[in-house]
Parts: sequence; structure tokens; C-alpha cells
Amino acid sequence: NQTLRAELGRAGWTTLHVMAARFPEEPSQDEQDAFVAYIHLFGMLYPCGDCAREFRKLVQAHPPSVGSRDQAMQWFCEIHNHVNVRLNKPIFPCEKVRDRWQCGC
Amino acid sequence: NQTLRAELGRAGWTTLHVMAARFPEEPSQDEQDAFVAYIHLFGMLYPCGDCAREFRKLVQAHPPSVGSRDQAMQWFCEIHNHVNVRLNKPIFPCEKVRDRWQCGC
Ligand SMILES: Cc1cc2nc3c(=O)[nH]c(=O)nc-3n(C[C@H](O)[C@H](O)[C@H](O)COP(=O)(O)OP(=O)(O)OC[C@H]3O[C@@H](n4cnc5c(N)ncnc54)[C@H](O)[C@@H]3O)c2cc1C
Ligand SMILES: Cc1cc2nc3c(=O)[nH]c(=O)nc-3n(C[C@H](O)[C@H](O)[C@H](O)COP(=O)(O)OP(=O)(O)OC[C@H]3O[C@@H](n4cnc5c(N)ncnc54)[C@H](O)[C@@H]3O)c2cc1C
Repeated sequence: NQTLRAELGRAGWTTLHVMAARFPEEPSQDEQDAFVAYIHLFGMLYPCGDCAREFRKLVQAHPPSVGSRDQAMQWFCEIHNHVNVRLNKPIFPCEKVRDRWQCGC
Repeated sequence: NQTLRAELGRAGWTTLHVMAARFPEEPSQDEQDAFVAYIHLFGMLYPCGDCAREFRKLVQAHPPSVGSRDQAMQWFCEIHNHVNVRLNKPIFPCEKVRDRWQCGC
């Protein structure tokens, strides 16, 4: 079901990009480890099997870079762009990622 | 910003409920451990600080029950209902959770 898959995808990306946007600007080693572990578990549990497999390959080819909030936001933007390319969707300009994914919560 | 907080909340719940709906019916110990770890990391990283704090308390009071797909779906339904009560939202009837959160992806 393509509609549900797209809805799930938007929900997944929203959660991930906002998480990065609220990640500490100067994360501790524990915070960095937590985010990296989260990314790997997300890749195991994301409930679209094909998507999860492709995501795991991307994460292996491009290890998470979460040394700062900016790095995390850029890393997710690039990973999302790899998925966009595979799905023939437009590339998102990563210099605009901070404006797109703010959350005052 | 309440609109963004609500949008993030819907995205977060969608990801979690569909994850439970696609969790193996008979998960291995590793799969169960992965889901429990994911839940704890979600509670650390969810990008609404107040929400995350309350979620961690709920998870502590009601340890994740992920011995099967059904258990996982019921557990998330009950946790979500605890949040609904706190926010004065209607209780969701958990016997309907399988119908609400299907995903053919
Ligand atoms: C980890 C993951 C893997 C996926 N793999 C697949 C797959 O293999 N096959 C499949 O069919 N679907 C997959 N999906 C779903 C797919 O990526 C889309 O979410 C879905 O098709 C809906 O697309 P959309 O056009 O609404 O925008 P989405 O791609 O969901 O993007 C939502 C919004 O994010 C913003 N955005 C777009 N690109 C970026 C970027 N690079 N950085 C920051 N913000 C951006 C835009 O404002 C966009 O409207 C996956 C989803 C996730 C979370
Ligand atoms: C972990 C977490 C903690 C949160 N904590 C807070 C907080 O402390 N303060 C705050 O203001 N907001 C919080 N939120 C956001 C809040 O829960 C809502 O997501 C947001 O207010 C939008 O609500 P909504 O009415 O659109 O429906 P949501 O509560 O987002 O629910 C989305 C859909 O899920 C279905 N649903 C509802 N209840 C259940 C259930 N029990 N089981 C299965 N499906 C159900 C319904 O179809 C509903 O339309 C939190 C979100 C998450 C993910």
C-alpha cells in the first residue's frame, strides 16, 4: 500500500529530522552513542522491510556523524537525499535544513 | 509552538504504532531486546523535552511488554492512552488498535 508507506515515511523523516534539530549543539559522548544506537535500531525496526534494508546499507556506507547538532542535521539530510535519489524525488538543499526542521517544543 | 508539537507527536505515534504492528508475531530474544532498547533511546532523544521526560516516567512505571506483536501493540496503546489522559484527550479502545494501525509496506 503506497499511501500508507508514504505516510509512514513522512512520519519517520519528521521524527528523525526534528530529533537532529533538537540534538545538543555540543553532545556528550553518551549522547552521541545514544543517537548512533538509535539510528541502528531504527534501521532494524523501521516497519517497511525494503526501506529498512536500504537504510541499513546507507548507514553502513555513510556512518552516522553526530558530533554536533549541525553534523547530525547534515547527516540526516544527506541520507534522506540518497533515498530521494533512489525514489526519483528532488534533492533537498541541505543548507536549508535548519529552516525546514525547527520545533519549538 | 503547539502546532509543531502536535505534528511531531502524530509523527512519533505513527512510527511507534506501525513499528509494533509490523513487529514479528513471535520475536526472538534479540528482536525483543532491540525493541526495548529502541523504546528507551526514543525516550532519551524524543525532541520535546517535557514529553520525553513524561514518557520515560511512563516507561519506568509500565515496563515494555514486547513478547509478541500483540503484546507490543497493546503496550503502546496503553502508553499512548496514559498520554491521552494527561492531555485530556479521548481514550482509544485498544481492542481496535490492529485495525487502526495497519501498514502493507
Ligand atoms: C528511513 C526511510 C527509508 C525509506 N525508504 C523507502 C524506500 O526504500 N522506498 C519507498 O518507497 N519509500 C521509502 N521511504 C519513504 C519515502 O522516503 C518518503 O517518506 C515517502 O515516499 C513520502 O515522500 P514525500 O514526497 O511526502 O516526502 P518525504 O521524503 O517523506 O519528505 C518529507 C519532507 O521532508 C523534507 N525533505 C525532503 N528531503 C529532505 C532532506 N534530504 N533533508 C531534510 N528534509 C528533507 C521535505 O520538506 C519533504 O516534504 C523511506 C522512509 C524512511 C524514513
Ligand atoms: C511519546 C510521546 C509523548 C508525548 N507527550 C506529550 C506531552 O507531554 N505534552 C504534549 O502536549 N504532547 C505530547 N505528545 C504529543 C501528543 O501525544 C499528540 O501526538 C499531539 O497532541 C497530537 O494529538 P492528536 O490529537 O492529533 O492525536 P495523537 O495523540 O497524536 O494520536 C494520533 C492518532 O493515533 C490514534 N490513537 C490515539 N490514541 C491511541 C492509542 N492509545 N493507541 C493507538 N492509537 C491511538 C488516533 O487515531 C489518533 O488520531 C507526545 C507524543 C509522543 C509520541
